[in-house]
Amino acid sequence: MFTFAREIVIEWGDCDPAGIVFYPRYFAMFNQSTALLFEAATGMTGFEIMREHDIIGWPMVDTRARFLRPSRFDERIRIETRVADLRRSSFDIEHRVTKDGELAIEASETRVWSARHPDDPSRIRALPIPEDLRRALGA
Amino acid sequence: MFTFAREIVIEWGDCDPAGIVFYPRYFAMFNQSTALLFEAATGMTGFEIMREHDIIGWPMVDTRARFLRPSRFDERIRIETRVADLRRSSFDIEHRVTKDGELAIEASETRVWSARHPDDPSRIRALPIPEDLRRALGA
Amino acid sequence: MFTFAREIVIEWGDCDPAGIVFYPRYFAMFNQSTALLFEAATGMTGFEIMREHDIIGWPMVDTRARFLRPSRFDERIRIETRVADLRRSSFDIEHRVTKDGELAIEASETRVWSARHPDDPSRIRALPIPEDLRRALGA
Amino acid sequence: MFTFAREIVIEWGDCDPAGIVFYPRYFAMFNQSTALLFEAATGMTGFEIMREHDIIGWPMVDTRARFLRPSRFDERIRIETRVADLRRSSFDIEHRVTKDGELAIEASETRVWSARHPDDPSRIRALPIPEDLRRALGA
Repeated sequence: MFTFAREIVIEWGDCDPAGIVFYPRYFAMFNQSTALLFEAATGMTGFEIMREHDIIGWPMVDTRARFLRPSRFDERIRIETRVADLRRSSFDIEHRVTKDGELAIEASETRVWSARHPDDPSRIRALPIPEDLRRALGA
Repeated sequence: MFTFAREIVIEWGDCDPAGIVFYPRYFAMFNQSTALLFEAATGMTGFEIMREHDIIGWPMVDTRARFLRPSRFDERIRIETRVADLRRSSFDIEHRVTKDGELAIEASETRVWSARHPDDPSRIRALPIPEDLRRALGA
Repeated sequence: MFTFAREIVIEWGDCDPAGIVFYPRYFAMFNQSTALLFEAATGMTGFEIMREHDIIGWPMVDTRARFLRPSRFDERIRIETRVADLRRSSFDIEHRVTKDGELAIEASETRVWSARHPDDPSRIRALPIPEDLRRALGA
Repeated sequence: MFTFAREIVIEWGDCDPAGIVFYPRYFAMFNQSTALLFEAATGMTGFEIMREHDIIGWPMVDTRARFLRPSRFDERIRIETRVADLRRSSFDIEHRVTKDGELAIEASETRVWSARHPDDPSRIRALPIPEDLRRALGA
């Protein structure tokens, strides 16, 4: 299924007093990589996808990351992101981070295609992933 | 083994355009809860522990979180943190987040007691967890 | 006019490779202090205030901060926040951060009481600050 | 003096429940733009500059930002950064953010070229800005 890769230079503000990336920042990078994969697959930004389908996004329901090598500011990493599984309303994404060609992080995530509940906008409910997105993602 | 609990009010700046916590922020909360568990167990702050043992901290090597219920800003959550396992240099922590008494997130993490390498300060190496900390944590 | 103070322990994740607070984090703390001042003045959370008055919040339009002393993780700071001026739709807030009784940061900000534009929800427009809030803030 | 410009796409995780950038995130962008200006001027990354000159960086001492137009996720902004003044140990930077050619933010900052104090590594002291950096910045 669809894959997307990008390179990121680690910023000073991504790092902690040990001089390496504060790991919650990696999840912010992964979140953006998932959005960029959708954009690459559909030709629409995340904003446009949400507006067209009247959803609030694809909230995270389960994620895991194994950190094999730390990175410090001004190092360049590569994040490869791919769709691992597409179900009716939920889907799995995998991120593989390399630095200088060596594996640095392996992460996986499960997200749900979600909209506000029509009867109670404070609640969120799952919706089926639209067919055109399924096709764009290669399912 | 040792447990530690605290309550947190979700901040506006923790939340995303869907109005719920941007999940990387939870990992920042869990990171601080682990530090506060160490502080509660030892009576020393993380800063003091690192200085006394000449370590750079306890970097994350593996973490997983399952998100069952979202929270929005100005909601109050409770994070219960416990030591699940202590090995020679690494240890496991579990976080359990509840809101209004209902389970909202389950997270687990594995960290390594780490110092700068004496021959190359750009490298990090594992050290044995000190005996006094093991005792304080109830191992 | 109304004042509000709180103490914060600096977290590991607030700090950068120099071991001191990454200054954008202070602005997140100030943003929350302003929300907590409103909560202390009105007895309503920010979420409740926004819902009652159908606003999207009080976006920042101008802020300045002078950083006199750095802080590192596990240090305790005190943030004193006060309303400096209330105009028709905008207001000024001042934050004064001390550490061990000594001034560490002085910050000021101007915000605007704001709602979505009724004709175009992608636009934001200023509204008059409600009378009950003015009274609560001591204007 | 030296200028540097870059374009940034606003990320979902940069934005708050109002759907616009949470303003502390802009300061993180400005911090990185200042580092990238140094890199463009010298051909060395911030990490390399700090190591060569044995400094801990250029901490912020005074910053101001005026926010004229909000931005939401998936919008593209342009940040133009320039050195406004170079003194013995401190320097001024200005950032000008535009969106679709219109001014969105004006920010200024004063930073100090700083090293650890040789007698007390917990203290920070100002050092003269090196001559080669002054020349690279066009002073």
